[in-house]
Amino acid sequence: MYKVDLNSDLGESFGAYTIGLDSQVVQYVSSVNVACGYHAGDPLVMDKTVAAAKAAGVAVGAHPGYPDLMGFGRRNLVCTPAEAKAYVQYQMGALLAFCAAHGVPLQHVKPHGALYNMAAKDEALAAGIAEGIASVDKNVILLGLAGSKLLSAGRAAGLRVASEVFADRAYQADGSLVPRSKPGAVIHDADEAIARTVRMVKEGKVTAITGEEVTIEAHSICVHGDNPDAVEFVRRIRAKLEAEGVTIAPIAQIV
Amino acid sequence: MYKVDLNSDLGESFGAYTIGLDSQVVQYVSSVNVACGYHAGDPLVMDKTVAAAKAAGVAVGAHPGYPDLMGFGRRNLVCTPAEAKAYVQYQMGALLAFCAAHGVPLQHVKPHGALYNMAAKDEALAAGIAEGIASVDKNVILLGLAGSKLLSAGRAAGLRVASEVFADRAYQADGSLVPRSKPGAVIHDADEAIARTVRMVKEGKVTAITGEEVTIEAHSICVHGDNPDAVEFVRRIRAKLEAEGVTIAPIAQIV
Amino acid sequence: MYKVDLNSDLGESFGAYTIGLDSQVVQYVSSVNVACGYHAGDPLVMDKTVAAAKAAGVAVGAHPGYPDLMGFGRRNLVCTPAEAKAYVQYQMGALLAFCAAHGVPLQHVKPHGALYNMAAKDEALAAGIAEGIASVDKNVILLGLAGSKLLSAGRAAGLRVASEVFADRAYQADGSLVPRSKPGAVIHDADEAIARTVRMVKEGKVTAITGEEVTIEAHSICVHGDNPDAVEFVRRIRAKLEAEGVTIAPIAQIV
Amino acid sequence: MYKVDLNSDLGESFGAYTIGLDSQVVQYVSSVNVACGYHAGDPLVMDKTVAAAKAAGVAVGAHPGYPDLMGFGRRNLVCTPAEAKAYVQYQMGALLAFCAAHGVPLQHVKPHGALYNMAAKDEALAAGIAEGIASVDKNVILLGLAGSKLLSAGRAAGLRVASEVFADRAYQADGSLVPRSKPGAVIHDADEAIARTVRMVKEGKVTAITGEEVTIEAHSICVHGDNPDAVEFVRRIRAKLEAEGVTIAPIAQIV
Repeated sequence: MYKVDLNSDLGESFGAYTIGLDSQVVQYVSSVNVACGYHAGDPLVMDKTVAAAKAAGVAVGAHPGYPDLMGFGRRNLVCTPAEAKAYVQYQMGALLAFCAAHGVPLQHVKPHGALYNMAAKDEALAAGIAEGIASVDKNVILLGLAGSKLLSAGRAAGLRVASEVFADRAYQADGSLVPRSKPGAVIHDADEAIARTVRMVKEGKVTAITGEEVTIEAHSICVHGDNPDAVEFVRRIRAKLEAEGVTIAPIAQIV
Repeated sequence: MYKVDLNSDLGESFGAYTIGLDSQVVQYVSSVNVACGYHAGDPLVMDKTVAAAKAAGVAVGAHPGYPDLMGFGRRNLVCTPAEAKAYVQYQMGALLAFCAAHGVPLQHVKPHGALYNMAAKDEALAAGIAEGIASVDKNVILLGLAGSKLLSAGRAAGLRVASEVFADRAYQADGSLVPRSKPGAVIHDADEAIARTVRMVKEGKVTAITGEEVTIEAHSICVHGDNPDAVEFVRRIRAKLEAEGVTIAPIAQIV
Repeated sequence: MYKVDLNSDLGESFGAYTIGLDSQVVQYVSSVNVACGYHAGDPLVMDKTVAAAKAAGVAVGAHPGYPDLMGFGRRNLVCTPAEAKAYVQYQMGALLAFCAAHGVPLQHVKPHGALYNMAAKDEALAAGIAEGIASVDKNVILLGLAGSKLLSAGRAAGLRVASEVFADRAYQADGSLVPRSKPGAVIHDADEAIARTVRMVKEGKVTAITGEEVTIEAHSICVHGDNPDAVEFVRRIRAKLEAEGVTIAPIAQIV
Repeated sequence: MYKVDLNSDLGESFGAYTIGLDSQVVQYVSSVNVACGYHAGDPLVMDKTVAAAKAAGVAVGAHPGYPDLMGFGRRNLVCTPAEAKAYVQYQMGALLAFCAAHGVPLQHVKPHGALYNMAAKDEALAAGIAEGIASVDKNVILLGLAGSKLLSAGRAAGLRVASEVFADRAYQADGSLVPRSKPGAVIHDADEAIARTVRMVKEGKVTAITGEEVTIEAHSICVHGDNPDAVEFVRRIRAKLEAEGVTIAPIAQIV
């Protein structure tokens, strides 16, 4: 039987600022990544987001990012592995408080934005993140880019790891993502994106932008809730996966 | 047998900025209040501070404050009880991560600065703080001003509470502190301050600025490590208390 | 001939966060108050907002607030007059840079949110703000609540001042606003709000919530662009004022 | 006649945090670079620092940095030239307000830390910074690393530029600094550092770490006031330069 997780970033609002259609997208996913106050989110938002995830019956993960609210954590910031470790510990702990308050477990940690991307390629940074998670709770799963340094660092730190794939992104022959700056990096056709995703989940294969067949492990699919079209895509990808006999389940039931 | 806790604020450094003689004062106290990144402190500092407390064998508490780094959390900020609750949960959780990483328990929470002072008199704010702590961990002690709303709110939330006294501050007939703006608010003579403290601990009494004898519960004495004179005062007050037969012990052994 | 200014807060977006229908409301007002990075706004947003104001031919003002992004500057923060002065200088200067870059003058300063409200009643705080503005540029106008301490402080500091009124708020017999916590504080009927505003502008009178006729000086009317209804209200109030023979003009042409 | 400027970073304190022996080092330099609230400094500190510079008769410059207080602006942050431009405009404007309040001109802008280092090598980033300065005030001098992209970008933007050298740093044959990660990068012998500086100023030459004679333009020498030893070094380098017939003068009298 096929199983996959659908994950989405939630709780990215801040103070008077609202971002994301959280209440809609939470209905279609099985895991949510909750911003923890560094690149987005604030304590009140975290509280509401954990409550909403609990109400929807979806699993909760921490989504720690760089301390760069002005850049939404999307800008590369060169910090030491020790800094990254401490930032992850801090944010993970902050979210654990709200999990405790609502009586839900913390299922996973998925680094955000530039922290996720830099750690995918930087072994030392990835190790800092993985050790940060393991130092706080060995049972929390590390969710990272399929084939990335984050996953190997997680395994080395004794964590369960989950491999994330992207429905709407092209892959290179080595299994890495085609950088957004390159033509063809993003797959704009929803049907094609969905078909590729179903194949990644059921066959563990994706066709690289250069034509090769690439083996890929798809534990979790990253989806977005930024706008109505994005939410509609999530609804459709879920419906199609289920129609194809794939069960949507939180990461903890998969890895 | 007499027992009292000596507590001091630690971990108030931030980034390139160093404040407080942490490595000295930690030798003389039994509990430390660790800043949690809102009014002071950062993740690396929190990590080092918990490690230093563990090494010194002193108990660790969280010291949450208002999100006002520029004002060091000392300025009154009018926020709702729900905001205060969430701010305490967030900061308490963040520190819990470092406690987990170092394998030390979180003994207590002591609100910082303006949050401490406002909550001492504001029942709803105090309730928000107490509920925040209880929602994260019912076994954590709330340390607050002797006779304040914080302590009654803590009890109402089902928490153990500890009553804090100040060696160098004058008291009013109702057991509250003489405001710093009034003459005589601060006791500058170290011998007098120490003698008053010994009496608060052994007799549960303090003489008010207006001459009345006031009953006061002294579970913990607040001391400072801002400068060499302050540290010397801590050394002396500890020595005198011990000479008077008072055991210095962390709050958890007292309340 | 009757003249009045219509002012609105603009440039309150921050990083990835968008707030306010700036491009719509800027078409109907004569002056804009640009957030300066403390309670809202960031350098890129400030740059775009000044450019948009210039393109629309409306006058630019600074909208300095408390350093409280998480609370959008709406929470009372007790700071000294010297702090408030320096915060106003800092934010005013920051906006002046973008004014210089776009070749537009800085017409006015209007404190934001809690800073505005606290200074309306606190003489020392108001003096700090007024002195801050005057120290940077004596020719900049201070826009504040009609009848408030801000205006008297501005005059004392040698500034031109402009008196602001609210279309949708009830007034007390002494000319102050009915606090939002009280029933009847907000006038929800748009026609009534517009009629009251026309009368404030043409007759200098408003009927207090307790029935008295109150004299009020209306140099500028505060309007909002938070949502489509708010923008539609601005369009209507402008149209009605013009139909009543009132010219809409920036503050500098009025005081 | 020989002339050179001595510049030092000042006003890096923040809120309750004090850093730098500002009151001492200001006596020995001719120009100061004032932190502007992003990587360090706050409005009250800026105000005091400009006042102190005025009292000491030294020229004032802005020292804008990345919005990274936690990293003191020393960490590389990948932002767009448009972001860097806006950050420089914002911080430069903020300092201009305090200059206006104290009636002193803004002599120069020197980017701080990682912004300075990244812009030294990145043409587009350097152009953003230079255009930011020029857009606010064409008469302000851009102070940057000798031979760097910052200086060429400044010239291209129509600014006067000043070339900065380091007394205690080794140079490579191409005139760039030996990276701090390499052995020999820092010259620890004060006499040697001073002798090298005198030669840079009088002969326009420095011996590279690999032995070559390198031509270098020394308009301004960067000195530090972090600790008593650093201040003593500044006193000595100034005395030696004067003994060698070199006049110490602010940048505006040199370029």
